[in-house]
Amino acid sequence: MATATSSVEEICRQAKAASHQLAQAGADVKNAALEAVADALITRTPEILEANAADLEAGRENGLSAALMDRLTLDAARVRAIAEGTRKIAQLGDPVGEVIDGFRLPNGLDVRKVRVPLGVVGVIYEARPNVTIDCAALCLKSGNAIVLRGSSSATHSNAILASIASDAATAAGLPEGALSLIGGGDRAELTELATQTETVDLIIPRGGEGLKNVLKDVATVPVIYAAAGNCHVYVDETADLAKAQEIVINAKVQRPGVCNAAETLLVHESVAERFLPRVLHALHDAGVQLHGDHATREAVPGIGVREAVAADWDTEYLDLEMAVKVVGSAEEAISHINKHGSGHSEAIVTGSADAARQFQLSVDAACVYVNASTRFTDGGEFGMGAEIGNSTQKLHARGPIGVRELCTFKYLVEGSGHVRI
Amino acid sequence: MATATSSVEEICRQAKAASHQLAQAGADVKNAALEAVADALITRTPEILEANAADLEAGRENGLSAALMDRLTLDAARVRAIAEGTRKIAQLGDPVGEVIDGFRLPNGLDVRKVRVPLGVVGVIYEARPNVTIDCAALCLKSGNAIVLRGSSSATHSNAILASIASDAATAAGLPEGALSLIGGGDRAELTELATQTETVDLIIPRGGEGLKNVLKDVATVPVIYAAAGNCHVYVDETADLAKAQEIVINAKVQRPGVCNAAETLLVHESVAERFLPRVLHALHDAGVQLHGDHATREAVPGIGVREAVAADWDTEYLDLEMAVKVVGSAEEAISHINKHGSGHSEAIVTGSADAARQFQLSVDAACVYVNASTRFTDGGEFGMGAEIGNSTQKLHARGPIGVRELCTFKYLVEGSGHVRI
Repeated sequence: MATATSSVEEICRQAKAASHQLAQAGADVKNAALEAVADALITRTPEILEANAADLEAGRENGLSAALMDRLTLDAARVRAIAEGTRKIAQLGDPVGEVIDGFRLPNGLDVRKVRVPLGVVGVIYEARPNVTIDCAALCLKSGNAIVLRGSSSATHSNAILASIASDAATAAGLPEGALSLIGGGDRAELTELATQTETVDLIIPRGGEGLKNVLKDVATVPVIYAAAGNCHVYVDETADLAKAQEIVINAKVQRPGVCNAAETLLVHESVAERFLPRVLHALHDAGVQLHGDHATREAVPGIGVREAVAADWDTEYLDLEMAVKVVGSAEEAISHINKHGSGHSEAIVTGSADAARQFQLSVDAACVYVNASTRFTDGGEFGMGAEIGNSTQKLHARGPIGVRELCTFKYLVEGSGHVRI
Repeated sequence: MATATSSVEEICRQAKAASHQLAQAGADVKNAALEAVADALITRTPEILEANAADLEAGRENGLSAALMDRLTLDAARVRAIAEGTRKIAQLGDPVGEVIDGFRLPNGLDVRKVRVPLGVVGVIYEARPNVTIDCAALCLKSGNAIVLRGSSSATHSNAILASIASDAATAAGLPEGALSLIGGGDRAELTELATQTETVDLIIPRGGEGLKNVLKDVATVPVIYAAAGNCHVYVDETADLAKAQEIVINAKVQRPGVCNAAETLLVHESVAERFLPRVLHALHDAGVQLHGDHATREAVPGIGVREAVAADWDTEYLDLEMAVKVVGSAEEAISHINKHGSGHSEAIVTGSADAARQFQLSVDAACVYVNASTRFTDGGEFGMGAEIGNSTQKLHARGPIGVRELCTFKYLVEGSGHVRI
């Protein structure tokens, strides 16, 4: 692995050189390397936990919050889970070399559109040391070199994880420089990484809005921003209300802190009186703080539904908190969603084929669900094996970003002396 | 069409509203609208030529160069060609609604990955008024609203073309606001358009490096930069030299001012003595100014091959001018190309299957040719019907940008009450 004394530019240049070899590494070599990384994580667990202990001690001294300390903490079980995740990625099909399209032109030229790696992917992340390995495994699998830049709070953990992975991958035949870690903590380094347009092909930030805003200001390398998710469940007039309740509860409560959890419930006025009391009591019993429009509060008094303010329709609570609104029609639900949603995951619960079709055609989001929870938007659930993030952008990758989305393509054209007339 | 007094923000908001309807317009409506635009261009040709005459007069007064005046000039034949181009786009298959992928998850959820329009595309262009219609046709065909911003030198021509197209499209059933033109000429307007992140989904610049650099500084909306093309032809030791010569001449001479023309010729040393004299004399006879390395100048004295300087290997001449270098191996050619090429179009001429495969695997470019001219990189040639540009970026679109590349996709997921466990 590149040493800590190398400059960011030098590390990225080495990554670029490695990427040319990696692009041609066969699936057998890449998969063996990932298995070797997993093996090394297990056998070298004591070193990892020792390094992690140093970060945890520094975290305690610096007064990190309990939530941050939890994210930072590794134990033998967590290391095992990281190793298992790596093996799972090894077992995925190789995205590189897949023929996406192919045709013969009228003049006889044969064209194949073939998936190839992007080259060098920079990942900038915060706190969780497991991201080091998750992202490295996805990038190596997709034939990309990776340059990691973690946070200062996880310096020791990230360094040992990256070093173990790099050593194991290199010993298994992947090129030196395929996996590098940049010191961490220094803002100047972040800016330097985000401006290596000659060598870095893509930056993926794994962190909060603060990190994203910094990158929006400084990055000249293309960035795919992981998603904010202001997701909705719309319960239509023809919905099976028992199923609707299960879906709403699942979308809000099963894991409220993630981007595919629902933040707003929209209910058709013709079922509001029947549906709202039962679903809101259930949400209330599950500990969900509710913000309702006038009709909602009228329909369900007594459980402390707060008056929704304008900001509620645009808020990603990421918590046991939900906005609720009664709408007059599917059209009104759709236009509310297209106005306030973040384009992540949107669901309709309906018995009507027409309403389902209209909702899927009209809602502008990465994933549009009929009679299912928004919680399924996930690379693992979608059979991609794992994801490096979830995109609400429309260009390149929309929805889960897996190994295919870490690739580009090229056109391979074969002729027998063809010239253009 | 939005009036010239509307603000850029207002025009973009109307475009966004129109885009929601456009996204659901059937191919029959869109195609009829494009045919109506073509008809209107023909019947209203006198108005177009009158407006164009006003621009030409202003151009003469402002001392525009002959080349710019030629780009600006419309006549009945050119208007007919624009109309025919529009009909050709109407005849393409509809990219919207194509199912790109689809699968059933283990839990029974059905997932379809379906192509949908991006929404609102902004096109910023210079001089050529035909771009107004070409880009409008591609955007409307792909279900996108378009906001055009032309140059001040073509104000009258662009205004009448946009007005004719908008009127015809609206009369044929497309929504108001689907096609708008922003005044033109004012830098503040350009900046405003390039920062409408709430409403504009993509900006495509059609112009020179100056325009691109302005956008790199100000744009917050995603931009796909049309390509610079520093393209190479590499003649391998096993090449059929007669075919190699045809390909080199074609790639350099057939249309030197375009991005897929070749700029550098690389020749394997074992064929340099046989090949260089014939090909360089032919290039010289075709009026090509040559810049050669030492070996090249030794091999072909007497026709004034200049000494190549370092900058020549990185220059896109876009003219009858070419750099020539002798290399020791296919590997050396590949590494020269990966170092100096712009990732656009690269060709090898070879009789060796191994060399062809190695070249295609290793060269990092949008289009990699074996035994064919680089000049084929073109949406029309590739059967895409037409292109709005050519991308050397790796994200989203690489190579020709046609109607499919003006789309994104969404995942449509159908269940029967599915919740995540």
